[in-house]
Amino acid sequence: MKDYIKHHRWKVIEEDFSPGNNRISESIFSIGNGHMGQRANFEEKYSGDTLRGSYIAGIYYPDKTRVGWWKNGYPEYFAKVINSTNWIGINIAIDNEELDLARVKVIRFRRELNMQTGLLSRIFTAELANGKKIEASSKRFVSLADPELGAIQYTVKALNFSGVLKAEIYLDGDIYNQDSNYEEKFWDEIDRTISGNEGFLTMETQKTKFRVCTGMSFFISKENKILQPEIKTISAKKYISGIAEIPLPEGQEILIEKFASVVSSQNYTEEKLAGAAKQAIKRAESKGFAGLFKAHKSRWTKKWETSDIQIEGDVAAQQGIRFNIFQLNQTYTGDDERLNIGPKGFTGEKYGGVTYWDTEAYCLPFYLGTAAQEVAKNLLLYRYKHLPKAIENAAKLGFKDGAALFPMVTINGEECHNEWEITFEEIHRNGAIAYAIRNYINYTGDSGYMAPFGFEVLLAVSRFWSQRINWSSEKQAYVILGVTGPNEYENNVNNNFHTNNMAAWTLRYTLDAIDYMKKEHPFLYYELEQKWKFNELKETARWKDIIKKMYLPFCKKEGVYLQQDGFLDKELAPAENIPADERPINQNWSWDRILRSCYIKQADTLQSLFWFENDYSEEQIKRHFDFYEPLTVHESSLSPCIHTIIAAKIGYYEKAYQLYLRTARLDLDDYNNDTGDGLHITSMGGTWMAFVMGFGGLRARNGKLVFNPFLPDKWKSYSFKINFRKAHLEIKKEKEKFTVRNHSGKTIQLSVWGEERDLPPHSTAGFFKNNNGI
Amino acid sequence: MKDYIKHHRWKVIEEDFSPGNNRISESIFSIGNGHMGQRANFEEKYSGDTLRGSYIAGIYYPDKTRVGWWKNGYPEYFAKVINSTNWIGINIAIDNEELDLARVKVIRFRRELNMQTGLLSRIFTAELANGKKIEASSKRFVSLADPELGAIQYTVKALNFSGVLKAEIYLDGDIYNQDSNYEEKFWDEIDRTISGNEGFLTMETQKTKFRVCTGMSFFISKENKILQPEIKTISAKKYISGIAEIPLPEGQEILIEKFASVVSSQNYTEEKLAGAAKQAIKRAESKGFAGLFKAHKSRWTKKWETSDIQIEGDVAAQQGIRFNIFQLNQTYTGDDERLNIGPKGFTGEKYGGVTYWDTEAYCLPFYLGTAAQEVAKNLLLYRYKHLPKAIENAAKLGFKDGAALFPMVTINGEECHNEWEITFEEIHRNGAIAYAIRNYINYTGDSGYMAPFGFEVLLAVSRFWSQRINWSSEKQAYVILGVTGPNEYENNVNNNFHTNNMAAWTLRYTLDAIDYMKKEHPFLYYELEQKWKFNELKETARWKDIIKKMYLPFCKKEGVYLQQDGFLDKELAPAENIPADERPINQNWSWDRILRSCYIKQADTLQSLFWFENDYSEEQIKRHFDFYEPLTVHESSLSPCIHTIIAAKIGYYEKAYQLYLRTARLDLDDYNNDTGDGLHITSMGGTWMAFVMGFGGLRARNGKLVFNPFLPDKWKSYSFKINFRKAHLEIKKEKEKFTVRNHSGKTIQLSVWGEERDLPPHSTAGFFKNNNGI
Repeated sequence: MKDYIKHHRWKVIEEDFSPGNNRISESIFSIGNGHMGQRANFEEKYSGDTLRGSYIAGIYYPDKTRVGWWKNGYPEYFAKVINSTNWIGINIAIDNEELDLARVKVIRFRRELNMQTGLLSRIFTAELANGKKIEASSKRFVSLADPELGAIQYTVKALNFSGVLKAEIYLDGDIYNQDSNYEEKFWDEIDRTISGNEGFLTMETQKTKFRVCTGMSFFISKENKILQPEIKTISAKKYISGIAEIPLPEGQEILIEKFASVVSSQNYTEEKLAGAAKQAIKRAESKGFAGLFKAHKSRWTKKWETSDIQIEGDVAAQQGIRFNIFQLNQTYTGDDERLNIGPKGFTGEKYGGVTYWDTEAYCLPFYLGTAAQEVAKNLLLYRYKHLPKAIENAAKLGFKDGAALFPMVTINGEECHNEWEITFEEIHRNGAIAYAIRNYINYTGDSGYMAPFGFEVLLAVSRFWSQRINWSSEKQAYVILGVTGPNEYENNVNNNFHTNNMAAWTLRYTLDAIDYMKKEHPFLYYELEQKWKFNELKETARWKDIIKKMYLPFCKKEGVYLQQDGFLDKELAPAENIPADERPINQNWSWDRILRSCYIKQADTLQSLFWFENDYSEEQIKRHFDFYEPLTVHESSLSPCIHTIIAAKIGYYEKAYQLYLRTARLDLDDYNNDTGDGLHITSMGGTWMAFVMGFGGLRARNGKLVFNPFLPDKWKSYSFKINFRKAHLEIKKEKEKFTVRNHSGKTIQLSVWGEERDLPPHSTAGFFKNNNGI
Repeated sequence: MKDYIKHHRWKVIEEDFSPGNNRISESIFSIGNGHMGQRANFEEKYSGDTLRGSYIAGIYYPDKTRVGWWKNGYPEYFAKVINSTNWIGINIAIDNEELDLARVKVIRFRRELNMQTGLLSRIFTAELANGKKIEASSKRFVSLADPELGAIQYTVKALNFSGVLKAEIYLDGDIYNQDSNYEEKFWDEIDRTISGNEGFLTMETQKTKFRVCTGMSFFISKENKILQPEIKTISAKKYISGIAEIPLPEGQEILIEKFASVVSSQNYTEEKLAGAAKQAIKRAESKGFAGLFKAHKSRWTKKWETSDIQIEGDVAAQQGIRFNIFQLNQTYTGDDERLNIGPKGFTGEKYGGVTYWDTEAYCLPFYLGTAAQEVAKNLLLYRYKHLPKAIENAAKLGFKDGAALFPMVTINGEECHNEWEITFEEIHRNGAIAYAIRNYINYTGDSGYMAPFGFEVLLAVSRFWSQRINWSSEKQAYVILGVTGPNEYENNVNNNFHTNNMAAWTLRYTLDAIDYMKKEHPFLYYELEQKWKFNELKETARWKDIIKKMYLPFCKKEGVYLQQDGFLDKELAPAENIPADERPINQNWSWDRILRSCYIKQADTLQSLFWFENDYSEEQIKRHFDFYEPLTVHESSLSPCIHTIIAAKIGYYEKAYQLYLRTARLDLDDYNNDTGDGLHITSMGGTWMAFVMGFGGLRARNGKLVFNPFLPDKWKSYSFKINFRKAHLEIKKEKEKFTVRNHSGKTIQLSVWGEERDLPPHSTAGFFKNNNGI
């Protein structure tokens, strides 16, 4: 845990340069626009500890799988979104003395990320080895308005000398991934040109053959006058640069503006790639830094209009929640259904930038609640497009007849992960993908999504469950053997409640989907029956039997469903009994000890109770929370959010607030000592859920917006904004007042603390009760 | 499966050179003397597919662990007995045309391993690219009489030309391991000298700093006359050689004799190493090839006197069983308690030449039954010496107070393996090590081994079990959660019968050991109590409670103990239902499918019933065999032997014979398509057990030798030799006669088919019953 980020409502601020925190700051101050992103590396050379990282959504390399002992069925490779051409580079020397913050005396330093405008800036004063003092600054953004563009303004001012500034503005394609399995380089050079202040570098990934053309142009000016210095160019393997030497009189400042364009063969044919990069550079030059930034800022204003959360009375909390929202919006913008959300977004290499069930379980609600409907829909379509691969994936594991198992980890639909207990057994993910369909339709009302997208996925997933299940003659029930639930602190267990429950639910929901299809899209349904060789009568008969006779482990004495068979054989003792110096247990206990302990990494049985809360009484939910929460160590960043929501629902408000705090500033305060690897992007979706569904008590139910809000004691008020069925709403909770404002032209049905009310267009409804609605 | 090895009672023969079988033959024809060994590589250059391998017992390198996802508790390295200096090399050229069997026309070829004398020989006729035909031969052995020495006789005869033979006789230390994790080389050169016909190369392993000095000298002769050709020498990095060019007239033959000595810092100080290598070479030279071979052969004669098995009426079976015995005797000679038995012996690199529980479970009985008492004792002392490391190993996993967990895989007592489900969970191995103590004392009568060796190991292992067990309030019994049994086709299960049973048995046996110690070694016992801070009253009270309340999963309906909790939830269907094209399932099914299937890799519950057969009625054993054998796929080479013994015991003679056939010629016929990687040395111990304990029905019980023999229908008779309590016995089974001959000076108590009889010194007892003793 660290505490060096200054608290501010809109800004993330670092003062006093500390090399030991540099990797952490590089993660925290990351910028992105949904299509590309980068860590907050310095433009100039830095010889200290750094992870230089620039990533392009969807551009990956199949890094050869590395395991100790091969298991049949393992994938051949792990797809990784890879580090790509470094386009921010501006090397600076004063009278041939290099500027390198690891080797100069840093007198003053401030790094700032303005979350309102998406601008990363830095200002510092440094004394070089030759005694010369400079003040330098940089401003940088990757455009949300024109996702192919990035721009930098870099200034250097002579404080105590007159001399010569040498600037080398470059593109470097000789890049490697720090986390590659075999220390290979993944990029080949295709082409490079450099001429005067403009250059282009085209690189291609090995094996996957993605081409990326990166362009740059730069301008040097002094006192608002563009200079025309002689530019020497360097053109070396995978590297181009332009070098200028400019007299820098004492007290004066030189400004270097650099524009970069990044285009890829995902969007252009190979022939058109260089032209597109050139055109993008032209666009940048014609608008200039100010013009580009204006458009960028205006897009951020729009983002905040539909997604901001305000907290009065707690600046740290305000900064925390905005940081989460900001990063989610930087990572995924939802205009391309080929893209998805990596656990670290564009902020690091760990987990390879690829997709987990995190997307459906923890991120979808944010985009459903704050963005246009298409954004969430594209997340669903991403999986729909992978359905053929999911069927292939299942076939590799011995399933047949169009059964689908979506991968644990993927970028192109193929499985990447290689731990048998996860890859082959953490199959509840298949249910999460089905649940996302239900979640989407329930929230948006877009039941047309079912035909055919939703239905085809549900059918294939149901077929998987139907084959994966087996009949236990001992139990006289259907069982699911050898699975790993969301709680990865148990592996290869039998009858994980959540998995069994998800399986039965998927089958039920697919039966509903069939009814819907037959009623609303009978001709399409007939077509799909043929296409999928779907024997409705026979297959649904088995499904119904499974639904009826699914085994769900239950403890009569405690009145709770059990995480899995044998859970009660464990020694049950609350997590608070674990000595502090043994926490987190995943860093202190051997793996087998964790596995046979009763300690839970993240919501498992409670995940089911959250998702299917309407199937259980509040009393039942309370009983389960009381049983499982004390055993939960929350060592996944995805854990506390679900517990927050449940705690809020059953009136454990202080507990809900305490749990919320564990994720809200997870990265800003480097809680888990791993922010240097990158930010926990997907858990940020969980934090948003914890806020809006926990504190706000928000649910969508039968087309209604339901609220059961409460206000944490320490806060004066909070407010948040959501989209709901194309309406735009503003919600505010104060001590004794709860307000919903409808900014749309349609009437919204509300239920607040059980009070039903229609909220007409452009009106506000106030609910005056004490804090917790009592 | 292959079928190219010619059947012969004493020899292994390959005719007609087939490059595709070369790796297999290199394994099969391997030679060793318990201290070093090598694959049957060619002396001359071979550019075809080959695994050149020469290994020295105990010389290992800690190869860095390679895993996909690190788990807390994994060892940093995997110790590997590594490939070392190649000392067999003799490169041959005729008129500068190189002899390389991959590039010449092979006209005639024969490779032969004489198991009676331990001599590897080869003879071939080849036509070189220049049309010149030669006949060449080699004879090679590593001396059983002088384990630091190896010798080669290599001849070349000109068939259709007169020319010049060029021979380069070399030592090559520039060696790598084919199975290393990071393609590193493990050896540094320390010193080299070459002068005339004698050279020495001293190499050192990185990290472990083992030094090995390899010496050579060579002599060239024609028609029994030693020649004195000019010797050119080469001294390059890690390489020395002597080169001679000798006129070779048509029809004449040149003989090259090469002696090699291999000495290591395991046995000499660094200063004395080179001198020792020189001395060894002098010994070799003074005895000459014939003298060395005579001593070597005479040792083999002795080995066979106490370990031979003869089968009349089946040459293939005769060759098979002798091959097993031969390889076991080549791998381990039992004169150094620092050494042990790797799963592939000196015949390949897979599994790193390190020690598994195979030693105790499958190899110990062979050495108990055929070698001097010290040989088996040294296998036990190997573990005893590792006890402190086993305690450290357990401490790493959270155990305390002197609890010991012996490693799954080790060379120096530290754990090497890195699959969590094996490393941390296949803990029944700890029971196997305890059982070996009981097995040794029971067979030899050497109860003094208990004080202190056996007792200390038992105490530490019992402490492990006592901590590893937990109380299930659900079951009101002690349970063992999260284990993997001998059947590695199930992982991380609860209450594996065999593991629970081993745990309870160890505790019982340790209580017996305490009684023995108190009675026979009271003073030592008192010392050990202090040394181990052993609170007898308190600790044994818990042990007794565990013994009493240990949970053993049992199915009343079937009357069988269950492999683990939840076994009956599986779909039970006999293995014969698996389609042939899906066998072996470990090559055709994904890992999860194997895990949740009912199919058993190797004896698991039956392992317990075999080890503790006296605890169960024959009826019970039969019931278990009938239940588990149909579910067993025997995809471990260690599986059929245990089933053979049980089948024989319950009178399933045909089944016993069929199961025996699956291992007897496993490598000779390359049954599992993996002999090229090396031989299945430890399963050869299982084959011997299957024969002697299965067909012979041999047991040692209360100092008596018990036999319940039968003769497979296809055979005319068999006989085998055993040592028992320093007596030497010869057992013969014919159709209607069973004979035991006592070659010793003491009376042996016999029980044959239940008939008790004393067998006086130097006498023979005959039992005349029909084949099966009925």
